[in-house]
Amino acid sequence: MHLEDILAQITPLDQQTMQTARTRQGALTKPQGSLGRLEELSIQMAGITGSPRPRLRHKVVLVMAGDHGVVNEGVSAFPQEVTPQMVANFLNGGAAINVLARHVGARVVVVDMGVAADMPPHPGLQVRKIAHATGNIARGPAMSRAQALECLQTGAQVCLEQIQAGLDLLATGDMGIGNTTPSAAIACAVTGRPAEEIAGRGTGVDDRGMQRKIAAIRLALETNHPDPSDGVDLLAKLGGFEIGGLAGAILAAASQRRPVVIDGFISTAAAMIAVLLAPEARHYLIAAHTSMETGHHVMMDWLQVRPLLDLQMRLGEGTGAALAMSLVEASCKILDEMATFEEAGVAGKET
Amino acid sequence: MHLEDILAQITPLDQQTMQTARTRQGALTKPQGSLGRLEELSIQMAGITGSPRPRLRHKVVLVMAGDHGVVNEGVSAFPQEVTPQMVANFLNGGAAINVLARHVGARVVVVDMGVAADMPPHPGLQVRKIAHATGNIARGPAMSRAQALECLQTGAQVCLEQIQAGLDLLATGDMGIGNTTPSAAIACAVTGRPAEEIAGRGTGVDDRGMQRKIAAIRLALETNHPDPSDGVDLLAKLGGFEIGGLAGAILAAASQRRPVVIDGFISTAAAMIAVLLAPEARHYLIAAHTSMETGHHVMMDWLQVRPLLDLQMRLGEGTGAALAMSLVEASCKILDEMATFEEAGVAGKET
Repeated sequence: MHLEDILAQITPLDQQTMQTARTRQGALTKPQGSLGRLEELSIQMAGITGSPRPRLRHKVVLVMAGDHGVVNEGVSAFPQEVTPQMVANFLNGGAAINVLARHVGARVVVVDMGVAADMPPHPGLQVRKIAHATGNIARGPAMSRAQALECLQTGAQVCLEQIQAGLDLLATGDMGIGNTTPSAAIACAVTGRPAEEIAGRGTGVDDRGMQRKIAAIRLALETNHPDPSDGVDLLAKLGGFEIGGLAGAILAAASQRRPVVIDGFISTAAAMIAVLLAPEARHYLIAAHTSMETGHHVMMDWLQVRPLLDLQMRLGEGTGAALAMSLVEASCKILDEMATFEEAGVAGKET
Repeated sequence: MHLEDILAQITPLDQQTMQTARTRQGALTKPQGSLGRLEELSIQMAGITGSPRPRLRHKVVLVMAGDHGVVNEGVSAFPQEVTPQMVANFLNGGAAINVLARHVGARVVVVDMGVAADMPPHPGLQVRKIAHATGNIARGPAMSRAQALECLQTGAQVCLEQIQAGLDLLATGDMGIGNTTPSAAIACAVTGRPAEEIAGRGTGVDDRGMQRKIAAIRLALETNHPDPSDGVDLLAKLGGFEIGGLAGAILAAASQRRPVVIDGFISTAAAMIAVLLAPEARHYLIAAHTSMETGHHVMMDWLQVRPLLDLQMRLGEGTGAALAMSLVEASCKILDEMATFEEAGVAGKET
């Protein structure tokens, strides 16, 4: 399906089904509202799926990997070779995201969107390379506009294939040494906030690295003059292949009425691009957690989403999203499986 | 086992095993500390269990029910008959705690510690009634000192039996119309804070009911003169049978090096009594979530615990604890199942 058709298919939530779910929440054997955000979540899920009692059989964590030319500016604590090494770790099941996805019963789908190295073939690896790493955004654009569109289209295609295979809840994840820098640059461009308010230490860069990172973000904004209202332009000038792929996947999920749990800093940057392209996509998002990365809360405010968890995590890979998936599923089970006051013969509130 | 022997068996966490776990966390394929509170949790779990890679096979949500004479003061939005009706709902699997315990793979154990009505026999119900509801704490003590000790002993016994049957992680839950009032009274007595800072709306009492509730708590403190340093005295004068039972269960779990996830307002009051009796028990606690009930954060500060979740819940039953159990389990799986940098052939941080 073409990106334009996908964008056209993203429609508002189903208000009538949300009302049905809201009424049922009020009839379940608990004081009204006493399950707080779980109740709200279940109503959002009803509105997304169009089902008054949504059931989440198939959960997918989509981990997209890419490399970043901006590592030449010395912005990361880890060397670029770690990107393919961690992809191999994902494929072998030894990374944090594998453990947490297993824990919550989700399958992990690993996509090479633009790792600098060529990975050895592996049945679990989808190779959809746009190119071998982006350009250095401090010196020029990350990619061409055509590549940005290809990224979005590819990410959407990957997601649509997973929906075909069975996907009731999507979580986004990322891997790419250096990718907090383009994510921060995107957030700066969209929100108008300065680099020092958004940039964090990523995988743990030291003070001097942090200064280089802030300088690189400033340079990226000055050099590229991105148009903050144009998601494709932002992606081309400041982005990453995995960021664009995730944005495309988010859009495809929303077009098929599938809820999307967004992970931390990088996934949130991808979600910002998705929402710039299709503002209604915002309602399909569930913010997993507050990342420790400095400006994450600014990005979530812009998206008007409120994270479910705050566990002081900053790993990426979809790790926060995997944990949040379990809460989303819990909320749907509450709506679906609890007895009503009438069914259970429990007396209501005294008036 | 006698309560005094249980108290004597509660010892500090195993620092050496915690160090082993900490070292392993640092060797796993992620930037150090990037899993935030999951890392800390896993280290606490190692210290509790004495295992450097704890595995949680058996999870139990212990839901204790009891009634409260103080309902005569008009402190609750729901009638007392709801207590046995909700116990029946637990036994039939239709309550929120059933749904959430199933979701996280825990078994629910339901104990009648002092419901006013006699419940029809049910294979899933443990009847350990201390009495048919407590006395009205606004007019006199909740129970005798002998009954308070019996409560603690019974709760401990129930927990030890569950450990015998298989219990690697305990969560506490409660049911009892009116039980936020004694819990608030306990918290006021222990922390010295006034009733209006601690009391909340419970299941949803209105403004006038709220005034009656605050008055009842003040009266309970003035009438009974509890000794804030004596957990048994507090329980006898202000408590509830389910609160004492949960305190006993917490102590028994700690004595057998089993971690305890405490739920919301009522469970936290129980934990305060447990910690007054055995200060080392504090280290065996994991605070599940911040309850919406007003003074809950004051109680957690006193316990020096920090909640994992904040989902604006206020239901009790162990619902917050069930959700948190899944995070505790996730933390242990991270420690146990992730590959190290060496195993995965991933390069470390650049120096």
